[in-house]
Amino acid sequence: MPIVQIHLIEGRTLEQKRKLVAEVTRAVVQSVDAPPEAVKVILSEMSRDNYANAGVLVIDKK
Amino acid sequence: MPIVQIHLIEGRTLEQKRKLVAEVTRAVVQSVDAPPEAVKVILSEMSRDNYANAGVLVIDKK
Amino acid sequence: MPIVQIHLIEGRTLEQKRKLVAEVTRAVVQSVDAPPEAVKVILSEMSRDNYANAGVLVIDKK
Amino acid sequence: MPIVQIHLIEGRTLEQKRKLVAEVTRAVVQSVDAPPEAVKVILSEMSRDNYANAGVLVIDKK
Amino acid sequence: MPIVQIHLIEGRTLEQKRKLVAEVTRAVVQSVDAPPEAVKVILSEMSRDNYANAGVLVIDKK
Amino acid sequence: MPIVQIHLIEGRTLEQKRKLVAEVTRAVVQSVDAPPEAVKVILSEMSRDNYANAGVLVIDKK
Repeated sequence: MPIVQIHLIEGRTLEQKRKLVAEVTRAVVQSVDAPPEAVKVILSEMSRDNYANAGVLVIDKK
Repeated sequence: MPIVQIHLIEGRTLEQKRKLVAEVTRAVVQSVDAPPEAVKVILSEMSRDNYANAGVLVIDKK
Repeated sequence: MPIVQIHLIEGRTLEQKRKLVAEVTRAVVQSVDAPPEAVKVILSEMSRDNYANAGVLVIDKK
Repeated sequence: MPIVQIHLIEGRTLEQKRKLVAEVTRAVVQSVDAPPEAVKVILSEMSRDNYANAGVLVIDKK
Repeated sequence: MPIVQIHLIEGRTLEQKRKLVAEVTRAVVQSVDAPPEAVKVILSEMSRDNYANAGVLVIDKK
Repeated sequence: MPIVQIHLIEGRTLEQKRKLVAEVTRAVVQSVDAPPEAVKVILSEMSRDNYANAGVLVIDKK
């Protein structure tokens, strides 16, 4: 039942995404005793002009 | 006031999306007695390398 | 795979919630040809001091 | 710590996004007394076939 | 149309919430030229055992 | 920068939550090479009358 959504800046390789969803799923399974097939992971990629920290877009960070 | 967000794998036709938002809106209106114009629906499409079940990306499913 | 999240003001009865999740699930199944058991619905209830329209909280609406 | 997500129709200029994240961050900082660097803003752009009001997609609005 | 969701630690007063939704709505209206009545704001309060930074829950921060 | 939101049924102990956020943060750090302090985790607990699978609320599951 755990549904995980991860917002991250775009640009990860397919290999990094594979590892990310596998490792996060394992972490959830081990921590809350859920069966693996109940764990869903959504990756929400953000472009650099769609995420800001302290009021400044990533694209404008020096 | 009900705000509905639906995450689904990309690749639906425009006709399917039209039907989806119309039918979901009708379901909300009938169930919780909200006026149709208060119901907002967001479709969040995910590519096949951005959604995983049981730790495996859709793109890697056999 | 469709994951539906519905934000709505708190105060619905259990019977209304039952109808809401059943009807929304049916709407998704019919529109995008997903099996019922793939459809997840999250209800996110908001208290009247946690939702605003036009900059005014529901609790302050006349 | 405040994490802000804004869903909006795509098509804003970079200049509008810059202003949006700066002004929203300022509003949060002034209202809840958080330090600017704790405020994160995610912009989630929706295409006109992925958002509906009253059961009708934006792309179909007259 | 802009829909704003703000996750923040619980404990703000009603007066702070009033100011927060008013100021954020004003910031959105001024930045992307949306009418005020189109702006929705959802406040999602998190208890101190439901938010973590660097892998540590707020409740465990010293 | 990765922001993780986990929806799960309420009822986990504080110890389980501690482990969950620590392990998920570690998984993200190892997979996408982010510094730990950039990883935020939001736990969104759902009561059993606010989550449905296949159109049936958890509270009604036999």
